Amino acid sequence: MVIKYELLKKDPSSMARLGRITTPHSIIDTPCFMPVGTQGTVKSLTPEQVEATSAQIILGNTYHLWTQPGHKTVEEAGGLHKFMNWNKSILTDSGGFQVFSLAKMRDIKEEGVTFKHHKNGSKLFLSPELSIEIQNSLGSDIMMSFDECPPYPSTREYMEKSVERTIRWAKRGFEANKNKDTQGLFGIIQGGEYEDIRIHCCEELTKIPFDGYSIGGLSVGEPKDIQNKVLSFTTPHLPEDKPRYLMGVGSPGAILDAVERGIDMFDCVLPTRIARHGCAMTSSGRKILKNQVYEKDYTPLDKECDCYCCKNYTKAYLHHLVKADEMLASTLISIHNIQFLENLMKGIRESIKNDTFKEFKKSVYDKYGLDNKEQDF
Amino acid sequence: MVIKYELLKKDPSSMARLGRITTPHSIIDTPCFMPVGTQGTVKSLTPEQVEATSAQIILGNTYHLWTQPGHKTVEEAGGLHKFMNWNKSILTDSGGFQVFSLAKMRDIKEEGVTFKHHKNGSKLFLSPELSIEIQNSLGSDIMMSFDECPPYPSTREYMEKSVERTIRWAKRGFEANKNKDTQGLFGIIQGGEYEDIRIHCCEELTKIPFDGYSIGGLSVGEPKDIQNKVLSFTTPHLPEDKPRYLMGVGSPGAILDAVERGIDMFDCVLPTRIARHGCAMTSSGRKILKNQVYEKDYTPLDKECDCYCCKNYTKAYLHHLVKADEMLASTLISIHNIQFLENLMKGIRESIKNDTFKEFKKSVYDKYGLDNKEQDF
Repeated sequence: MVIKYELLKKDPSSMARLGRITTPHSIIDTPCFMPVGTQGTVKSLTPEQVEATSAQIILGNTYHLWTQPGHKTVEEAGGLHKFMNWNKSILTDSGGFQVFSLAKMRDIKEEGVTFKHHKNGSKLFLSPELSIEIQNSLGSDIMMSFDECPPYPSTREYMEKSVERTIRWAKRGFEANKNKDTQGLFGIIQGGEYEDIRIHCCEELTKIPFDGYSIGGLSVGEPKDIQNKVLSFTTPHLPEDKPRYLMGVGSPGAILDAVERGIDMFDCVLPTRIARHGCAMTSSGRKILKNQVYEKDYTPLDKECDCYCCKNYTKAYLHHLVKADEMLASTLISIHNIQFLENLMKGIRESIKNDTFKEFKKSVYDKYGLDNKEQDF
Repeated sequence: MVIKYELLKKDPSSMARLGRITTPHSIIDTPCFMPVGTQGTVKSLTPEQVEATSAQIILGNTYHLWTQPGHKTVEEAGGLHKFMNWNKSILTDSGGFQVFSLAKMRDIKEEGVTFKHHKNGSKLFLSPELSIEIQNSLGSDIMMSFDECPPYPSTREYMEKSVERTIRWAKRGFEANKNKDTQGLFGIIQGGEYEDIRIHCCEELTKIPFDGYSIGGLSVGEPKDIQNKVLSFTTPHLPEDKPRYLMGVGSPGAILDAVERGIDMFDCVLPTRIARHGCAMTSSGRKILKNQVYEKDYTPLDKECDCYCCKNYTKAYLHHLVKADEMLASTLISIHNIQFLENLMKGIRESIKNDTFKEFKKSVYDKYGLDNKEQDF
């Protein structure tokens, strides 16, 4: 297998796992968080700044890179790693989520999906084969199968049909991969909140020798308890010797809940998106830097953090940068927010190692008051 | 003196000088270029990225920092160096130029200038004493006298009155400096294109023991030949043992012309401002990165450049970032443009050292075809 997963330790009190993924580009300790670099850049950061947060893998978006600059342009550049000057691992999504969340007017057929570009309205067509062809051009370490991501809620009848198609698409995508020796491929488990459909999807997709499995269709507006319920009944049907990736989840409470249910990998635009709006994730909760209370606060953003931002700048300076609409605000807060999550993952891994995961989870929940919130951070 | 200037060598064929300025924070080889950090940050760059271009001194804008975050906020932070995490030298302007270029509706009296804020329209008053008080709070290594910057063209009658007031203001500012042991102060020579008024201003201001002298009121719309003419008849009336600073000039041709006429220091928003619009200064002229011709150009921005951007990225990638409206475009092109000018200054210093300044100037002019352009870059 191109992607090697080693299960190092199982938490005795939950489904949490300590592991290690080896890709052609880096070794990734799991559970891990992947910053998102949608358009071939983690917004407002150089690759060196991303690496300094200790991220070992980032995510690139197939839909965006396909439409701009075009996958052939990236391929001719020598692949996405070289194009964007990032030498650690890259995971690419399939484009499926964006087709169903961003694009206007879509027409789903067995062959694939016809839809309109989210900005210029031009007509586009994406299929399981084309998704893999694009990802082969990008040269990511880990690719995703092209799937349908149905909205929440969807009827059982629709979900059954959709998941059958997603399974057929997964098989077609697997066959289409031209770089089996250099690029890994994950299958995506769909099925909404329906236990039997999720399990059926697991059973069918685990017949295909994917390098890992993603849980899709969560964090699409469903209540938090449904997300946890779905994970609880799904991960037991996934192989122990392959990594499990919960797509689009990046808030600390949801990460802890998912790790507890056997998830190894996470990605989310949350840390960089809220940073661009002047919001920081800190050990004392979310901070809105534009708030006047920080005008003369000459202390670091987060006294428990050792990131570049917290070591060198004060809240007063960040407040000023946000008010003055300076780009450096996005850079500094993005660095902090990513490192905040990377540090959380480090704490999680440490706690699994020490058989203290449950205590660690409770301490973070208590500290952030997460039990009282539907959406933490 | 707080600011020490050593004249290391005079070019035998022109007024060009090789020198070294020592401030409380760094040693600056001259002729030098100073990147502009208007609001306490060189836009889109961390201080480390600025330092990597080999810049030894940056400029901060008194007007901007006074109105946001306020000079007292910066003072309480421990001064501008600490606030923005920049440990080399800082030069601050007086606010005068912004009052006359940015502000709406102004009323100039002997006491100072009343005007409206350029964004929120609030009523403000700035005087020679207040300008120095603000700069004392900021803690810059080199401060500027508060001056009137008359537009081009101005009548002889107006210019005479204005310069007399600027001279009186310079004396008041000099007296107002509370940090004579830690902050240097430059006088500003005004007088438009009138030779006798410029010389009179030099004579009066050199009676005051300023740490250096700035040439103001150029690059305000006058033809290039007037700028050169003014420099030619002004710098001979400035002391040899103090640095000379031409404010607001940053295009290669104008820098070379001014060095030839005895100028040691330059600043300009040009490299960072055009970077934010996707324009690069290169050894083969100005490049507009959005241009479709760069879509698949997998070569560095400037093959003669050794900056972080040119070492790690291609024009195709920069083209993509500009088209995708990614902040990293501003960062990478700003790094390149600043280093392009820092490298030019290095070449100028080397040529003065080797008695080849005239040849160097001609080679740059020929290379960029500067003789054919009114405005280079």
